Amino acid sequence: MSVEDAPIGVFDSGVGGLTVAREIMRQMPDENIVYFGDTARVPYGNKSKTTILRFSRQIVSFLRTKQVKAIVIACNTASAHALDIIEKEQDIPVIGVIRAGARTAAAATENGRIGIIATRGTIDSGVYEEVLRHIDPGFQIFGKACPLFVPLVEEGLTHDFITEEIARRYVKDLQYKGIDTMILGCTHYPLLRSLLKKVMGDDVTLVNPAYETAVELLELLEQKGMRRKRQPGGPPAEYRFYVSDLAAQFQEFAGSILPYDVAETQQIDIESYGQETERGEK
Amino acid sequence: MSVEDAPIGVFDSGVGGLTVAREIMRQMPDENIVYFGDTARVPYGNKSKTTILRFSRQIVSFLRTKQVKAIVIACNTASAHALDIIEKEQDIPVIGVIRAGARTAAAATENGRIGIIATRGTIDSGVYEEVLRHIDPGFQIFGKACPLFVPLVEEGLTHDFITEEIARRYVKDLQYKGIDTMILGCTHYPLLRSLLKKVMGDDVTLVNPAYETAVELLELLEQKGMRRKRQPGGPPAEYRFYVSDLAAQFQEFAGSILPYDVAETQQIDIESYGQETERGEK
Repeated sequence: MSVEDAPIGVFDSGVGGLTVAREIMRQMPDENIVYFGDTARVPYGNKSKTTILRFSRQIVSFLRTKQVKAIVIACNTASAHALDIIEKEQDIPVIGVIRAGARTAAAATENGRIGIIATRGTIDSGVYEEVLRHIDPGFQIFGKACPLFVPLVEEGLTHDFITEEIARRYVKDLQYKGIDTMILGCTHYPLLRSLLKKVMGDDVTLVNPAYETAVELLELLEQKGMRRKRQPGGPPAEYRFYVSDLAAQFQEFAGSILPYDVAETQQIDIESYGQETERGEK
Repeated sequence: MSVEDAPIGVFDSGVGGLTVAREIMRQMPDENIVYFGDTARVPYGNKSKTTILRFSRQIVSFLRTKQVKAIVIACNTASAHALDIIEKEQDIPVIGVIRAGARTAAAATENGRIGIIATRGTIDSGVYEEVLRHIDPGFQIFGKACPLFVPLVEEGLTHDFITEEIARRYVKDLQYKGIDTMILGCTHYPLLRSLLKKVMGDDVTLVNPAYETAVELLELLEQKGMRRKRQPGGPPAEYRFYVSDLAAQFQEFAGSILPYDVAETQQIDIESYGQETERGEK
């Protein structure tokens, strides 16, 4: 297999990263994709850096067995805790969703006051703040953890008054701080976009890192001469989906996000990959 | 160490099982306890039987290294999916929270119409129904999955009108069916007891399996001559807490449930225990 034909590896704690995979499919319809969703250990949001790094390394080990040419960490929590380290450990490009989201927010803001809504893990990591301050030390940055959004989305309450009430409580402080730009720092949150638009009003720009991540990936592959160009009459792009738990929920939810059949989703034993930790107590 | 002095192993997907540990501490204050919370892979509620069984076997392997004399599966989902199998595989007593809860509900109901609220995994397993029908085939049993209750409890919204509104939606069908007894089939739910009491009214008996599980354990240990009797002047009961992820949340939440200091909680690499599965795709 030529490097151009090699797939792009995309992973997330579960189904949320499919919003990123969808953007890659839209912007680069010829690219092959291998998606992994860690449905046995989802969610990552409330777990520690050590744990998320161990999970991410196992997943990268698995994706490497699929000869991926690049890896997209389509999970904000994993990008926050593991991207820097994984990037150094791997000899293929690895990108996360955070820098792309931060760059777009930096370009969008007029008053320099940027809000971030995300999981507890992403907020506590301070990573968005760090990346944004690197772009402009003058930015005022305000983060808010929203742990109920993922379960509410997964219960299908994306347009419910309960979700709206919870959203109003979560963003109250950010509104009080006068932000003009808000990063949707969790891959599930774009599914709350219209509700958040209503709550935040027209004066606040909502940034969806999934879109920008696909743009960054496209540029990177172009630059390295790694884009797949489908030959006339050649095979179309191939999408393969793997999960660590084959509960029905993945397929249901995936079906609502992607215009593809994901019935062929395969389960793998993710814990058997990249085991280099010692047994026992730490 | 004599068998009486050996600890009781208690495990759960996370912190919820501490409500069961607390009952054991109250009813058997002399017993030593080793608690394991699988905080790296919490929650179990939406995951498949295969995955829950694998996780449970790893945890049992770990607890056996602590020379436990008995194991309590203090998690409804794990009891539903793994108790029968683990019980056969082990040569020490293993009990779960489900039979005790079912027996109490069976004794409490007058009209034979019993409701169960629990995670998706517990409801879909049909295990409460099976155990209740074994007691009395005439029972009418109605289950309802309540996936938002655990995150709402973990956000501290145990007395919030939002939780009440969600509870009203969840239990509407059960009320319509005329149940007179409702099992709180998830270890987090006793923390919603007063709110659920308000929503269900005085005519519905709420059953908390944690209490009954401790009663069952006490009887079992008596019967097998395995009770620890503290000697006058001898060491008090010792409690040890292990987790798979050392996020701050465990200690915060544990502090709100237990009148003990759990600052000495240790993290272990649970995935390295009981690995007998093969690497690769299934």
